[in-house]
Amino acid sequence: MSDRAFQEYYPDVLAHCYGCGRLNEHGHRIRSFWEGEESVCRFTPRPHHIAVPGYVYGGLLASLLDCHGTGTAAAAAYRAEGRDMASQPPLRFLTASLHVDYLKPTPLGVTLEIRGRVKEVKGRKVVVEEWILADGTVTVRGEVVAVQVPEKLLDNLVK
Amino acid sequence: MSDRAFQEYYPDVLAHCYGCGRLNEHGHRIRSFWEGEESVCRFTPRPHHIAVPGYVYGGLLASLLDCHGTGTAAAAAYRAEGRDMASQPPLRFLTASLHVDYLKPTPLGVTLEIRGRVKEVKGRKVVVEEWILADGTVTVRGEVVAVQVPEKLLDNLVK
Repeated sequence: MSDRAFQEYYPDVLAHCYGCGRLNEHGHRIRSFWEGEESVCRFTPRPHHIAVPGYVYGGLLASLLDCHGTGTAAAAAYRAEGRDMASQPPLRFLTASLHVDYLKPTPLGVTLEIRGRVKEVKGRKVVVEEWILADGTVTVRGEVVAVQVPEKLLDNLVK
Repeated sequence: MSDRAFQEYYPDVLAHCYGCGRLNEHGHRIRSFWEGEESVCRFTPRPHHIAVPGYVYGGLLASLLDCHGTGTAAAAAYRAEGRDMASQPPLRFLTASLHVDYLKPTPLGVTLEIRGRVKEVKGRKVVVEEWILADGTVTVRGEVVAVQVPEKLLDNLVK
């Protein structure tokens, strides 16, 4: 397991995202890693990330799945090409769709584990299934359909 | 059209939500209203709510659909009972599932319009279809399945 998170390989221009950009000082700055065939991100919601007293806000949980999902998609794309994430050109993914099932209330005050597994790779599209554990219990399941950012858009952003 | 938002009727104990709680000073504090058969919420993302430069973070868009959806579900439930939202007992909804399709990038720097329409009411479940407009163009479509908070849980929270 690398000690460098997927998000730490994103080029600076793509590192401003509120969910996962290491350069967004107001954001969540999530960090995702491989653990074998699964990707994992550990995140501790802050007290104001509340839904009702004692429980985590669902919009935050959706956001965590979103960014951990696109990060996992990118890491999987490098893996599929047998490339290190530091190699050029960068591969980045945007979310085409996001689905979240809230199975149980997620308790506030514990570190959450967001886990992902690549379900399907089809051309430029990667489907990532995900789940969130709180104290070892799965409270949320979801799926992200991520699409690779077109080179043209990436070029426009990087320039 | 009432000038009091759905969220302004939530009892204090249920008004801490990061997305829609009027008492959460760190949160989005969204405000939703009826406009005929549709509900609407206008929200201007802040500069740090960024995905890639120029565009809004998808996790925020998911969060807006989530809270506007549960707010619309609650307002619809009062309507269905012919009750004013200020009447007792309070009706509140939690999100069972959330689906978001990101159709196009949503530009940052404009006020977004989040619109909802009740698609189905089935017992304690309300399905709300939603869409987000930026400069008059639909950039996101989504659906929230909201479930009425059990009286028991509501009682425990209110006490």
